[in-house]
Amino acid sequence: MDKFENAAIVKKANVYFDGNVTSRTVLFEDGTKKTLGIILPGTYEFGTADKEVMEVLTGSAKVLLKGSDSWSQYEAGQSFEIPANSSFKISVEKIMDYCCSYIKE
Amino acid sequence: MDKFENAAIVKKANVYFDGNVTSRTVLFEDGTKKTLGIILPGTYEFGTADKEVMEVLTGSAKVLLKGSDSWSQYEAGQSFEIPANSSFKISVEKIMDYCCSYIKE
Repeated sequence: MDKFENAAIVKKANVYFDGNVTSRTVLFEDGTKKTLGIILPGTYEFGTADKEVMEVLTGSAKVLLKGSDSWSQYEAGQSFEIPANSSFKISVEKIMDYCCSYIKE
Repeated sequence: MDKFENAAIVKKANVYFDGNVTSRTVLFEDGTKKTLGIILPGTYEFGTADKEVMEVLTGSAKVLLKGSDSWSQYEAGQSFEIPANSSFKISVEKIMDYCCSYIKE
């Protein structure tokens, strides 16, 4: 059972798109932050502030990065990066479980 | 920002009812366990093994305990208990964010 140790977990959820996307914030001793989230079927657009690394834990997603004209597909176990101060569209057919790491640059 | 410190969080989500109910498991140094979860609108039935204390973080819920014939309503900030080895129905009109504590007896 893969888990994050010695972390702080924010009690309240982050809720987007009427609950179709939700996540929990995990804070680490070194000051870094991750969110663990669920995306229900649909297509959503998100903006980034920090660079993000999205790891697909369960399910799969098609992703369109800002400035790109082609969607890329990612399966469970794969990750993709989104640059800082950018945006991306994500399309999910079945429920997707993810871990997002926020990278200060 | 209320949070749990010095805890471990299991990476993968717990998913029920096609993702209409999802949660993350938080493990504490004293061996106790909580889940932080989201319930989307609908009515669901759950069984218990340990005794559970459900705290409504956001939203509200109507709850029918096994053996009861009346639903009780709980609002954000309120909690309700479900006995060990029992079951309950929970009905949610708007998204509900909860914290569930599992109590060994």
